[in-house]
Amino acid sequence: LLHQTSDTDHNRTVLTFAGRPEAVCEAAFRAVRAAVERIDLTRQSGVHPRIGAADVVPLVPLEGIGIEECAAGAASLGARIWEELRVPVYLYEAAAREPERRNLEMIRKGGFEGLRDEVRRNPARKPDFGGPGLHPSAGATVVGARNVLVAFNVLLDTADVSLARAIARKVRASSGGLPTVKAIGVLLASKGRAQVSMNLTDYRTTPPRVAFDAVAQEAAASGVGVVSSEIVGLIPAAALWPDAAGHLRCENLSPDVILDNRIATLE
Amino acid sequence: LLHQTSDTDHNRTVLTFAGRPEAVCEAAFRAVRAAVERIDLTRQSGVHPRIGAADVVPLVPLEGIGIEECAAGAASLGARIWEELRVPVYLYEAAAREPERRNLEMIRKGGFEGLRDEVRRNPARKPDFGGPGLHPSAGATVVGARNVLVAFNVLLDTADVSLARAIARKVRASSGGLPTVKAIGVLLASKGRAQVSMNLTDYRTTPPRVAFDAVAQEAAASGVGVVSSEIVGLIPAAALWPDAAGHLRCENLSPDVILDNRIATLE
Repeated sequence: LLHQTSDTDHNRTVLTFAGRPEAVCEAAFRAVRAAVERIDLTRQSGVHPRIGAADVVPLVPLEGIGIEECAAGAASLGARIWEELRVPVYLYEAAAREPERRNLEMIRKGGFEGLRDEVRRNPARKPDFGGPGLHPSAGATVVGARNVLVAFNVLLDTADVSLARAIARKVRASSGGLPTVKAIGVLLASKGRAQVSMNLTDYRTTPPRVAFDAVAQEAAASGVGVVSSEIVGLIPAAALWPDAAGHLRCENLSPDVILDNRIATLE
Repeated sequence: LLHQTSDTDHNRTVLTFAGRPEAVCEAAFRAVRAAVERIDLTRQSGVHPRIGAADVVPLVPLEGIGIEECAAGAASLGARIWEELRVPVYLYEAAAREPERRNLEMIRKGGFEGLRDEVRRNPARKPDFGGPGLHPSAGATVVGARNVLVAFNVLLDTADVSLARAIARKVRASSGGLPTVKAIGVLLASKGRAQVSMNLTDYRTTPPRVAFDAVAQEAAASGVGVVSSEIVGLIPAAALWPDAAGHLRCENLSPDVILDNRIATLE
């Protein structure tokens, strides 16, 4: 288990774990089972979109494995989740069997409550495994394969969630904003402030700095400041210095010469 | 052993190892002994300044230890090197017993050949342990305690070493250049090019990007380009994104959320 984080307002826990493919798939299955046993979506609420107790399980290739192998693992894992837990499964991104399911937000449309009603009458929303209805308390689980992304939230100095939503629309790729950026606006009740919550699906194309600057600029145009930002889960070092090696024309800048990485091997 | 690197022109090997204080001091002693047994400075040459077969041994506090404890360890290690190997020792930086020995370059002045002649007649150059003369083949060893520094070299697109030396004088702190920067100009015969070789002793004050830009600007003023740069040994991640956390106003940017660090713990 590399990292875990939970958030009161999003009401969501993100677990990051790594290992050999079989071990990761086994751990993912057990984590889904634990969530299905413990979380009742009919009594759960939070600002983050979700359709399942175990909402989304992305398999990410790190070393010695490709995205296609992760996609195959996702399909096996998805079949097992349906067979053993009776939770319907959608396959997404590199594991998607239909083009429109490459995008997680298309699968999540309407959330648990909306999908629960629609899934039986709209053939386009039929799960890849299981159905016809959702699991009564655990909804559905989205399983897939994708590359590393950066989940990055920017907190605005306002409680006006409509501004956060307007900024999200401005900066996200789907409405002509920054490439490889997904964004929504949410209200963090615990902080009394609105947040632009983003996924940077290719941090080499749009690194956190560029996304932050765009949000800050849009907020400033409405006379609102930025309070802070946060990284959800883990972030590749290269996303923080996306152009360091290039700017320095550095011959040997790699994770192997980063002191922190080498010290981490001692722990 | 976290890292090792050697260079034909500098003719120098840098080893980086880490562990508990006693283990590190024992390993350092054995590394010095191996160098003393194998390297004959009367037959060694290279562009990097040196006075010893085992030239300099800095103890660097990483976690759970302070610079003063490292300085005490350096004094013990230095005494042992003299007692068991009969190699005289100078103490430097935080372990220095005289102010002028805080600077490594003052101790190294004249190199092995110059110091060998001067050490017996100039009391100011008497070693902290041993003497009166240097070890005939292994010279002297400089032992001390310091914080992490970044050794960073910039290769110029010219064989004119006098330009590299002039740039080094411009950028180094001792002649009014960038704070916490040490720099020399050397010729890399194997590449037919001159290099500005730097130590950034406080990368928070002057990070590699600032040093690189200064060298590139000075070179450009003489119509010379920069070919590349290289990091010698290891570099803290924070030196590559010295202002990332600040710019992003990021609440939780720490080594614990860097994916590379967490993956490194698996290896």
